Amino acid sequence: LKFEVEPIGVVRNEVIEPRGQEWGQVISEIELKEELAPALDGLEEFSHIIVIFWFHRVAPGEFPLKLHPRGRQDLPLLGVLATRHSRRPNPIGLSIVRLLERRGNRLRVRGLDAFDGTPVLDIKPYSPSFDAPREATVPWWTEIISRLPYKAGRNEHR
Amino acid sequence: LKFEVEPIGVVRNEVIEPRGQEWGQVISEIELKEELAPALDGLEEFSHIIVIFWFHRVAPGEFPLKLHPRGRQDLPLLGVLATRHSRRPNPIGLSIVRLLERRGNRLRVRGLDAFDGTPVLDIKPYSPSFDAPREATVPWWTEIISRLPYKAGRNEHR
Repeated sequence: LKFEVEPIGVVRNEVIEPRGQEWGQVISEIELKEELAPALDGLEEFSHIIVIFWFHRVAPGEFPLKLHPRGRQDLPLLGVLATRHSRRPNPIGLSIVRLLERRGNRLRVRGLDAFDGTPVLDIKPYSPSFDAPREATVPWWTEIISRLPYKAGRNEHR
Repeated sequence: LKFEVEPIGVVRNEVIEPRGQEWGQVISEIELKEELAPALDGLEEFSHIIVIFWFHRVAPGEFPLKLHPRGRQDLPLLGVLATRHSRRPNPIGLSIVRLLERRGNRLRVRGLDAFDGTPVLDIKPYSPSFDAPREATVPWWTEIISRLPYKAGRNEHR
Protein backbone atom coordinates (compact mmCIF):
# COMPACT_ATOMS: atom_id res chain seq x y z
CA LEU A 1 0.00 0.00 0.00
CA LYS A 2 1.46 3.30 -1.08
CA PHE A 3 0.19 6.83 -1.52
CA GLU A 4 1.40 9.58 -3.78
CA VAL A 5 2.10 13.08 -2.60
CA GLU A 6 2.74 16.00 -4.88
CA PRO A 7 4.62 19.09 -3.68
CA ILE A 8 2.46 22.19 -3.42
CA GLY A 9 5.48 24.47 -3.44
CA VAL A 10 9.15 24.89 -2.68
CA VAL A 11 11.37 26.52 -0.04
CA ARG A 12 13.61 29.35 -1.18
CA ASN A 13 16.43 30.53 1.06
CA GLU A 14 20.20 30.84 1.15
CA VAL A 15 20.91 27.63 3.00
CA ILE A 16 22.59 25.06 0.82
CA GLU A 17 25.06 23.59 3.29
CA PRO A 18 23.90 20.65 5.38
CA ARG A 19 25.80 21.16 8.64
CA GLY A 20 26.33 23.55 11.47
CA GLN A 21 23.49 25.81 10.48
CA GLU A 22 21.88 28.07 13.06
CA TRP A 23 18.35 28.03 11.74
CA GLY A 24 16.57 30.33 14.14
CA GLN A 25 17.05 33.52 12.16
CA VAL A 26 16.94 32.07 8.66
CA ILE A 27 14.40 33.82 6.49
CA SER A 28 12.79 31.64 3.84
CA GLU A 29 10.22 32.18 1.20
CA ILE A 30 7.79 29.37 0.54
CA GLU A 31 6.68 29.68 -3.01
CA LEU A 32 3.45 27.78 -3.66
CA LYS A 33 2.06 26.92 -7.05
CA GLU A 34 0.37 29.98 -8.43
CA GLU A 35 -3.01 28.31 -8.71
CA LEU A 36 -2.93 27.64 -4.96
CA ALA A 37 -2.73 31.32 -4.01
CA PRO A 38 -6.44 31.50 -3.02
CA ALA A 39 -5.93 28.46 -0.78
CA LEU A 40 -3.81 30.68 1.49
CA ASP A 41 -6.49 33.31 2.10
CA GLY A 42 -6.80 33.93 5.82
CA LEU A 43 -3.53 32.23 6.74
CA GLU A 44 -1.91 35.65 7.16
CA GLU A 45 -3.99 36.16 10.29
CA PHE A 46 -2.01 33.47 12.10
CA SER A 47 1.36 34.34 13.59
CA HIS A 48 2.71 30.81 13.13
CA ILE A 49 2.22 28.02 10.65
CA ILE A 50 3.01 24.33 10.46
CA VAL A 51 5.13 23.43 7.46
CA ILE A 52 5.25 19.81 6.32
CA PHE A 53 7.99 19.14 3.83
CA TRP A 54 9.95 16.43 2.07
CA PHE A 55 13.55 15.67 3.07
CA HIS A 56 14.62 15.63 -0.55
CA ARG A 57 18.30 15.08 0.19
CA VAL A 58 17.78 11.65 1.68
CA ALA A 59 16.89 8.50 -0.18
CA PRO A 60 13.45 7.20 0.80
CA GLY A 61 13.50 3.79 2.40
CA GLU A 62 17.05 4.09 3.61
CA PHE A 63 16.99 4.74 7.30
CA PRO A 64 18.58 3.40 10.47
CA LEU A 65 16.25 1.70 12.92
CA LYS A 66 18.30 3.16 15.75
CA LEU A 67 20.80 5.98 16.08
CA HIS A 68 22.44 8.40 18.49
CA PRO A 69 20.79 11.84 18.28
CA ARG A 70 23.00 14.26 16.35
CA GLY A 71 25.54 11.45 16.07
CA ARG A 72 26.62 11.92 19.68
CA GLN A 73 27.79 8.75 21.36
CA ASP A 74 27.14 10.30 24.77
CA LEU A 75 23.43 10.35 24.03
CA PRO A 76 21.31 7.19 24.13
CA LEU A 77 20.85 4.89 21.18
CA LEU A 78 17.28 5.71 20.16
CA GLY A 79 14.76 4.46 17.69
CA VAL A 80 14.67 6.75 14.69
CA LEU A 81 11.00 7.54 15.36
CA ALA A 82 12.01 8.85 18.79
CA THR A 83 14.14 11.46 17.02
CA ARG A 84 13.63 14.16 14.42
CA HIS A 85 16.25 12.69 12.11
CA SER A 86 15.68 13.20 8.40
CA ARG A 87 16.45 9.59 7.51
CA ARG A 88 13.20 7.98 8.59
CA PRO A 89 10.68 5.57 7.04
CA ASN A 90 8.88 8.38 5.22
CA PRO A 91 11.26 11.33 4.85
CA ILE A 92 8.70 13.87 6.03
CA GLY A 93 9.85 16.94 7.98
CA LEU A 94 7.79 19.22 10.16
CA SER A 95 8.48 22.67 11.54
CA ILE A 96 6.34 25.27 13.23
CA VAL A 97 7.57 28.68 12.16
CA ARG A 98 6.81 32.38 12.38
CA LEU A 99 4.82 33.69 9.42
CA LEU A 100 6.15 37.13 8.58
CA GLU A 101 4.24 37.95 5.45
CA ARG A 102 1.97 36.48 2.85
CA ARG A 103 1.81 37.89 -0.62
CA GLY A 104 -0.30 35.97 -3.12
CA ASN A 105 1.23 32.52 -3.41
CA ARG A 106 4.28 33.39 -1.32
CA LEU A 107 4.88 33.04 2.39
CA ARG A 108 7.84 34.65 4.10
CA VAL A 109 8.77 32.75 7.26
CA ARG A 110 11.48 32.80 9.92
CA GLY A 111 13.20 29.77 11.39
CA LEU A 112 12.26 27.11 8.89
CA ASP A 113 14.99 24.46 9.07
CA ALA A 114 14.80 23.31 5.47
CA PHE A 115 17.34 23.72 2.72
CA ASP A 116 16.85 25.75 -0.38
CA GLY A 117 14.82 23.73 -2.85
CA THR A 118 12.96 21.66 -0.28
CA PRO A 119 9.58 20.49 -1.60
CA VAL A 120 6.65 21.52 0.59
CA LEU A 121 3.78 19.05 1.03
CA ASP A 122 1.37 20.94 3.26
CA ILE A 123 0.83 24.15 5.19
CA LYS A 124 -1.44 24.29 8.22
CA PRO A 125 -2.37 27.08 10.61
CA TYR A 126 -0.88 26.74 14.08
CA SER A 127 -3.30 27.07 16.99
CA PRO A 128 -1.83 26.73 20.49
CA SER A 129 -5.16 25.51 21.83
CA PHE A 130 -4.96 22.49 19.54
CA ASP A 131 -1.25 22.10 19.03
CA ALA A 132 0.44 23.03 22.31
CA PRO A 133 -0.48 20.47 24.95
CA ARG A 134 0.05 21.61 28.50
CA GLU A 135 2.44 19.87 30.81
CA ALA A 136 4.28 18.03 28.09
CA THR A 137 7.41 16.35 29.38
CA VAL A 138 10.53 15.27 27.55
CA PRO A 139 13.51 13.08 28.44
CA TRP A 140 16.79 14.49 29.70
CA TRP A 141 18.65 14.18 26.41
CA THR A 142 16.43 16.69 24.62
CA GLU A 143 17.80 19.33 26.95
CA ILE A 144 21.32 18.57 25.76
CA ILE A 145 20.23 18.66 22.13
CA SER A 146 18.55 22.01 22.58
CA ARG A 147 21.85 23.47 23.79
CA LEU A 148 23.85 22.34 20.76
CA PRO A 149 25.06 25.05 18.37
CA TYR A 150 22.49 24.23 15.70
CA LYS A 151 19.78 23.94 18.33
CA ALA A 152 17.21 26.03 16.58
CA GLY A 153 16.66 23.34 13.98
CA ARG A 154 13.75 21.12 14.86
CA ASN A 155 14.71 18.42 12.40
CA GLU A 156 18.02 16.66 12.25
CA HIS A 157 19.47 17.05 8.79
CA ARG A 158 22.23 14.78 7.56
CA LEU B 1 7.05 15.65 -9.54
CA LYS B 2 5.57 13.17 -7.10
CA PHE B 3 6.79 11.23 -4.11
CA GLU B 4 5.60 7.97 -2.68
CA VAL B 5 4.78 7.44 0.96
CA GLU B 6 4.18 4.10 2.53
CA PRO B 7 2.21 3.76 5.76
CA ILE B 8 4.29 2.65 8.73
CA GLY B 9 1.22 1.56 10.65
CA VAL B 10 -2.49 1.98 11.25
CA VAL B 11 -4.81 3.57 13.82
CA ARG B 12 -7.07 1.23 15.77
CA ASN B 13 -9.98 2.67 17.72
CA GLU B 14 -13.76 2.52 17.93
CA VAL B 15 -14.47 5.61 15.86
CA ILE B 16 -16.02 4.76 12.53
CA GLU B 17 -18.55 7.59 12.23
CA PRO B 18 -17.39 10.78 10.58
CA ARG B 19 -19.46 13.42 12.41
CA GLY B 20 -20.10 14.91 15.80
CA GLN B 21 -17.27 13.08 17.46
CA GLU B 22 -15.80 14.39 20.69
CA TRP B 23 -12.22 13.30 20.18
CA GLY B 24 -10.55 14.44 23.37
CA GLN B 25 -11.02 11.25 25.33
CA VAL B 26 -10.77 8.76 22.48
CA ILE B 27 -8.18 6.10 23.16
CA SER B 28 -6.45 4.73 20.08
CA GLU B 29 -3.81 2.18 19.47
CA ILE B 30 -1.31 2.90 16.76
CA GLU B 31 -0.08 -0.40 15.46
CA LEU B 32 3.19 -0.07 13.60
CA LYS B 33 4.71 -2.69 11.37
CA GLU B 34 6.39 -5.26 13.54
CA GLU B 35 9.79 -4.71 12.01
CA LEU B 36 9.63 -1.06 13.08
CA ALA B 37 9.32 -1.85 16.80
CA PRO B 38 12.99 -0.97 17.51
CA ALA B 39 12.46 2.39 15.78
CA LEU B 40 10.22 3.38 18.71
CA ASP B 41 12.85 2.80 21.42
CA GLY B 42 13.02 5.87 23.63
CA LEU B 43 9.76 7.38 22.43
CA GLU B 44 8.05 6.19 25.61
CA GLU B 45 10.02 8.81 27.53
CA PHE B 46 8.05 11.60 25.86
CA SER B 47 4.62 12.48 27.21
CA HIS B 48 3.35 13.62 23.80
CA ILE B 49 3.98 12.65 20.21
CA ILE B 50 3.25 14.11 16.80
CA VAL B 51 1.24 11.78 14.58
CA ILE B 52 1.23 12.37 10.84
CA PHE B 53 -1.41 10.39 9.04
CA TRP B 54 -3.27 9.99 5.78
CA PHE B 55 -6.88 11.14 5.43
CA HIS B 56 -7.83 7.90 3.74
CA ARG B 57 -11.50 8.74 3.47
CA VAL B 58 -10.98 11.62 1.08
CA ALA B 59 -9.97 11.38 -2.55
CA PRO B 60 -6.53 12.91 -3.16
CA GLY B 61 -6.57 15.85 -5.51
CA GLU B 62 -10.18 16.72 -4.82
CA PHE B 63 -10.23 19.73 -2.57
CA PRO B 64 -11.89 23.13 -2.42
CA LEU B 65 -9.60 26.14 -2.78
CA LYS B 66 -11.78 27.98 -0.27
CA LEU B 67 -14.34 26.96 2.32
CA HIS B 68 -16.09 28.01 5.50
CA PRO B 69 -14.52 26.32 8.54
CA ARG B 70 -16.71 23.47 9.77
CA GLY B 71 -19.17 24.42 7.05
CA ARG B 72 -20.39 27.41 9.04
CA GLN B 73 -21.55 30.31 6.93
CA ASP B 74 -21.04 32.68 9.86
CA LEU B 75 -17.31 32.08 9.68
CA PRO B 76 -15.13 33.61 6.97
CA LEU B 77 -14.54 32.02 3.61
CA LEU B 78 -10.96 30.81 4.00
CA GLY B 79 -8.34 29.22 1.86
CA VAL B 80 -8.18 25.51 2.57
CA LEU B 81 -4.55 25.82 3.69
CA ALA B 82 -5.70 28.29 6.36
CA THR B 83 -7.82 25.48 7.84
CA ARG B 84 -7.27 21.95 9.12
CA HIS B 85 -9.81 20.52 6.70
CA SER B 86 -9.12 16.98 5.53
CA ARG B 87 -9.80 17.79 1.88
CA ARG B 88 -6.54 19.54 1.02
CA PRO B 89 -3.93 19.26 -1.76
CA ASN B 90 -2.13 16.41 0.00
CA PRO B 91 -4.56 14.72 2.41
CA ILE B 92 -2.09 14.69 5.29
CA GLY B 93 -3.37 15.05 8.85
CA LEU B 94 -1.43 16.01 11.95
CA SER B 95 -2.22 15.70 15.62
CA ILE B 96 -0.19 16.11 18.77
CA VAL B 97 -1.44 13.60 21.31
CA ARG B 98 -0.76 12.16 24.73
CA LEU B 99 1.30 8.98 24.66
CA LEU B 100 -0.07 6.65 27.32
CA GLU B 101 1.93 3.53 26.73
CA ARG B 102 4.30 1.90 24.31
CA ARG B 103 4.54 -1.84 24.03
CA GLY B 104 6.76 -3.18 21.29
CA ASN B 105 5.33 -1.93 18.02
CA ARG B 106 2.18 -0.50 19.62
CA LEU B 107 1.47 2.97 20.95
CA ARG B 108 -1.57 3.72 23.05
CA VAL B 109 -2.56 7.37 22.74
CA ARG B 110 -5.36 9.67 23.87
CA GLY B 111 -7.07 12.31 21.76
CA LEU B 112 -6.00 11.28 18.29
CA ASP B 113 -8.68 12.57 15.92
CA ALA B 114 -8.35 9.88 13.30
CA PHE B 115 -10.82 7.18 12.36
CA ASP B 116 -10.26 3.49 12.80
CA GLY B 117 -8.12 2.22 9.97
CA THR B 118 -6.30 5.49 9.32
CA PRO B 119 -2.85 4.90 7.79
CA VAL B 120 -0.01 6.46 9.77
CA LEU B 121 2.89 8.00 7.86
CA ASP B 122 5.18 9.22 10.61
CA ILE B 123 5.60 9.50 14.36
CA LYS B 124 7.77 12.20 15.90
CA PRO B 125 8.58 13.11 19.49
CA TYR B 126 6.98 16.35 20.68
CA SER B 127 9.31 18.86 22.35
CA PRO B 128 7.73 22.10 23.56
CA SER B 129 11.05 23.94 23.16
CA PHE B 130 10.97 23.21 19.43
CA ASP B 131 7.28 22.86 18.74
CA ALA B 132 5.48 25.33 20.98
CA PRO B 133 6.37 28.86 19.91
CA ARG B 134 5.70 31.52 22.50
CA GLU B 135 3.27 34.31 21.88
CA ALA B 136 1.54 32.66 18.96
CA THR B 137 -1.58 34.51 17.94
CA VAL B 138 -4.62 33.29 16.07
CA PRO B 139 -7.57 35.01 14.40
CA TRP B 140 -10.93 35.44 16.12
CA TRP B 141 -12.67 32.59 14.33
CA THR B 142 -10.45 29.92 15.86
CA GLU B 143 -11.95 30.83 19.22
CA ILE B 144 -15.40 30.02 17.87
CA ILE B 145 -14.20 26.74 16.40
CA SER B 146 -12.59 25.71 19.67
CA ARG B 147 -15.97 26.07 21.38
CA LEU B 148 -17.84 23.82 18.96
CA PRO B 149 -19.02 20.44 20.29
CA TYR B 150 -16.36 18.49 18.45
CA LYS B 151 -13.72 20.99 19.48
CA ALA B 152 -11.14 18.52 20.61
CA GLY B 153 -10.49 17.41 17.05
CA ARG B 154 -7.59 19.25 15.54
CA ASN B 155 -8.41 18.25 12.01
CA GLU B 156 -11.69 18.84 10.26
CA HIS B 157 -13.02 15.53 9.03
CA ARG B 158 -15.71 15.44 6.41
